[in-house]
Amino acid sequence: MNYCTKCGAQVELRIPDGDNHLRHVCQRCGEIHYMNPKLVIGCIAEWNGEILLCRRAIEPRYGYWTLPAGFMENGESTTEAALRETLEEACAIVEIDDLFSLINVPHINQVHLFYRGQLKTPDFGAGEESLETLLFPEEGIPWKDLAFRTVSLCLRDYFSDRRRGRFSFHERSLTPTSSI
Amino acid sequence: MNYCTKCGAQVELRIPDGDNHLRHVCQRCGEIHYMNPKLVIGCIAEWNGEILLCRRAIEPRYGYWTLPAGFMENGESTTEAALRETLEEACAIVEIDDLFSLINVPHINQVHLFYRGQLKTPDFGAGEESLETLLFPEEGIPWKDLAFRTVSLCLRDYFSDRRRGRFSFHERSLTPTSSI
Repeated sequence: MNYCTKCGAQVELRIPDGDNHLRHVCQRCGEIHYMNPKLVIGCIAEWNGEILLCRRAIEPRYGYWTLPAGFMENGESTTEAALRETLEEACAIVEIDDLFSLINVPHINQVHLFYRGQLKTPDFGAGEESLETLLFPEEGIPWKDLAFRTVSLCLRDYFSDRRRGRFSFHERSLTPTSSI
Repeated sequence: MNYCTKCGAQVELRIPDGDNHLRHVCQRCGEIHYMNPKLVIGCIAEWNGEILLCRRAIEPRYGYWTLPAGFMENGESTTEAALRETLEEACAIVEIDDLFSLINVPHINQVHLFYRGQLKTPDFGAGEESLETLLFPEEGIPWKDLAFRTVSLCLRDYFSDRRRGRFSFHERSLTPTSSI
């Protein structure tokens, strides 16, 4: 960040009075520009026990498989974000169940939330950001070709819970040495 | 938002190619400035069955009671945010238990998360943003003087679960007609 969004003057990095974090502060109007983690929200969508995965048509991780997920938008709720991302990336309409997983990725200032969901019909397709979308049984999951570590951890927890016959909520934090 | 944070030129509101949301786009360098919901994270901290509340020394809702909570910072995890806010606002060290409540407040682009926690010792105080900090038994909670609707809903769910003898995870979405 170089310039103030309010007045266009240059910002400097300093700790404002009464604060204990470095912030971008406008040298002219004094506006303090806070930066906060972003929520990435996705869905583990099932149809007859199989899981819907999308192959990414965008960077990062072009060509790798992922759960439908993306940045939460202003004005929506977390479940609305999960519904929207599943519709946009997998052209699928799901019924959202409970929140299943929260994974902190502090080194890139993100918090990933994954909901469980059920496809309403076996209709799906490749959205603009996907090369293809497919249903995978547990034994067919392309583990080595998954795009992100949060997706792989979430799916492992999911299948482990499903085998046990009971879904619980999982929380994790990734360390900087891990990939996303 | 009036100016680009990268180059300082004026931004315009338009839908970028391949997008479906209005964004602030720089008229000179083309940078797209995304705006996303913020996480507010707090803690329901117990000591001998009593709950730690802080009376706000800042606006909004100066003088009203709240759970220790605040905006999650870049570089931390959700539980680290809960620990930090409890230390900063209530000068208390807690052991964080499970995530208890997620409350969407889409009309102000916020998601509130509350963790359950236990005070390690009965030591606490008023941080810079608090006028005073006190422990309240369930029957003493100042319901009419709570600062935010998310705090009041969270506490009602908490006491209801506690009476039942089992804590579960609660998710809610507030509507624009409700207060925060």
